[in-house]
Amino acid sequence: MRRLTLEQAEQLAQAILRRHGFSEAYVRAIGATVLAGERDGCASHGLWRLLGIIKTLKAGKVEPCAEPQVIDQAPGLVRVEAHGGFSQLAFAAGLPLLAAKARANGIAALAINRCVHFSALWVELEALTELGLVALACNPTQAYVAPAGGSRPLFGTNPIAFGWPRVDQPPFIFDFATSAIARGDIELHRRSGQALPTGWGLDRHGQPCSDAAEVLDHGAMLTFGGHKGSALAAMVELIAGPLIGDLTSAESLAFDEGRQGLPYHGELLIALDPQRFLGEQATQHLARAEALFAAIQGQGARLPAQRRYAARARSLEQGVEIPQALYDELRALLD
Amino acid sequence: MRRLTLEQAEQLAQAILRRHGFSEAYVRAIGATVLAGERDGCASHGLWRLLGIIKTLKAGKVEPCAEPQVIDQAPGLVRVEAHGGFSQLAFAAGLPLLAAKARANGIAALAINRCVHFSALWVELEALTELGLVALACNPTQAYVAPAGGSRPLFGTNPIAFGWPRVDQPPFIFDFATSAIARGDIELHRRSGQALPTGWGLDRHGQPCSDAAEVLDHGAMLTFGGHKGSALAAMVELIAGPLIGDLTSAESLAFDEGRQGLPYHGELLIALDPQRFLGEQATQHLARAEALFAAIQGQGARLPAQRRYAARARSLEQGVEIPQALYDELRALLD
Repeated sequence: MRRLTLEQAEQLAQAILRRHGFSEAYVRAIGATVLAGERDGCASHGLWRLLGIIKTLKAGKVEPCAEPQVIDQAPGLVRVEAHGGFSQLAFAAGLPLLAAKARANGIAALAINRCVHFSALWVELEALTELGLVALACNPTQAYVAPAGGSRPLFGTNPIAFGWPRVDQPPFIFDFATSAIARGDIELHRRSGQALPTGWGLDRHGQPCSDAAEVLDHGAMLTFGGHKGSALAAMVELIAGPLIGDLTSAESLAFDEGRQGLPYHGELLIALDPQRFLGEQATQHLARAEALFAAIQGQGARLPAQRRYAARARSLEQGVEIPQALYDELRALLD
Repeated sequence: MRRLTLEQAEQLAQAILRRHGFSEAYVRAIGATVLAGERDGCASHGLWRLLGIIKTLKAGKVEPCAEPQVIDQAPGLVRVEAHGGFSQLAFAAGLPLLAAKARANGIAALAINRCVHFSALWVELEALTELGLVALACNPTQAYVAPAGGSRPLFGTNPIAFGWPRVDQPPFIFDFATSAIARGDIELHRRSGQALPTGWGLDRHGQPCSDAAEVLDHGAMLTFGGHKGSALAAMVELIAGPLIGDLTSAESLAFDEGRQGLPYHGELLIALDPQRFLGEQATQHLARAEALFAAIQGQGARLPAQRRYAARARSLEQGVEIPQALYDELRALLD
């Protein structure tokens, strides 16, 4: 393992992005995102992502200097045209107008169009909860997941995330794939030759399958929670696809043309302002939310992001550790 | 079994409600809701619900003549004070302003406060999709469900529903509890003495339990999909509870004071207008949603409400059938 301070980790990320021709705005925005993932113990959204980012760039599937364009679509709607750039800059560009609209109207939505996407949604939700807003976000990915009762890939792993601001506490945030498990976890089973647990995947004939390679190469992943998870995955396809004039996961996979690049699609965020909902009673009612959190933790259950916040606290003190092989691969990207 | 035409079923429902002193507006609104449930083959939301409605009324836990009050809370927010009446009238009162705001702004929310609730959410979502709007709805219920990793009831069965309008087709709608199973299904297992499947409930010590009576009387139900379903249940508590200044499921259960009446709480609906999101391109992109539905059905999977629509088609031709014992109980409510 190789230990890095957070500053070293960010500098490494920025140097790689700069070396490959990303504009300074992307260098900072993407660098901050992969650093946040690494810092919070989400290795799959950490420095490792730089490999996929550069691969996607080399495949000509992302614009390294695209300037996002903010469109004031309607009193409650912001649209950002990412013009094929990574989502981070598009989100940052749209955030101020989204927040202003949410504060003015009580609820507002931000649609990001034609972005390349690799980020966990919680990074964006933290930006919204820091502004005191409640937020929902989702996006399609690429078609790897079969609908419940089906047999072939159609949905993406379609994450849904939710954030709730807390006073003097990190926000209540969850962010999960609507697939039973992340694709990366099935990859790990392939590499180690382990059998998949029931409920993760189907073979090429649409039958339950414990062989990771078969599921990944010829079969389909499954949604979490059976038909309920499948319904949620379909909702994500609809509201972060056709509703915002952007690709479904099947269309996104087709756009990739087999290059295994990062997905290209849209994203929908909804922001709600508790102050507008509650007025003078906001403090009183937000305290009742705190009572709910206390009741969850009081019976030994965890809040969704608790493990991530613990990792963050550790990383802020001790820095992060990444495998030496990954460190070498990343250094090689600087040549 | 007793066969009734839809007209007879509605007249029976209305007569019972009228006999017990509901105002004519509630007689019609509640009558239409239980008829819709019965017609669509959802017996648990059909005529059977009248027993609980009258029980709740007799316990003094619902106002039979409350006049809902519509409040224009913010440019994107409607609030309806139900004043302790059933939710149907509050929803109907708020719907026109919600739709107008969604059309003007692209997105809007309706918060219903202090209503008594028994309806499936799809009934309301159909009213929104008929107006061409995409919609989300959720509400807490009463604390019967333990958070993932916990041991005691805290969350309600907290349904989440979503609707998407379709041209010349019934809407794409799902509406499911975030509990692993409906409380009524566990009741049925108690009556028949059947063991519960794994994943439905916990005993008084927070351990997995297959004894329906123990789960219902001393233990807790479980969420669907493990920690993901639990996160969604918490979200519903927050956005349809404190965010709208209304009760959580634990507070709603406390309000009931052990009378086993229908839950008293709030409800949150969010409406999005595809025309505002997409402008002139709406037709083109909504056609892409149809391609998604065709791909789901093309691999043998069902759309969420398909079974319900099939039951509706049958009922419109043949009427409905209810158990003779239920019919007798309902008739007795007319005395």
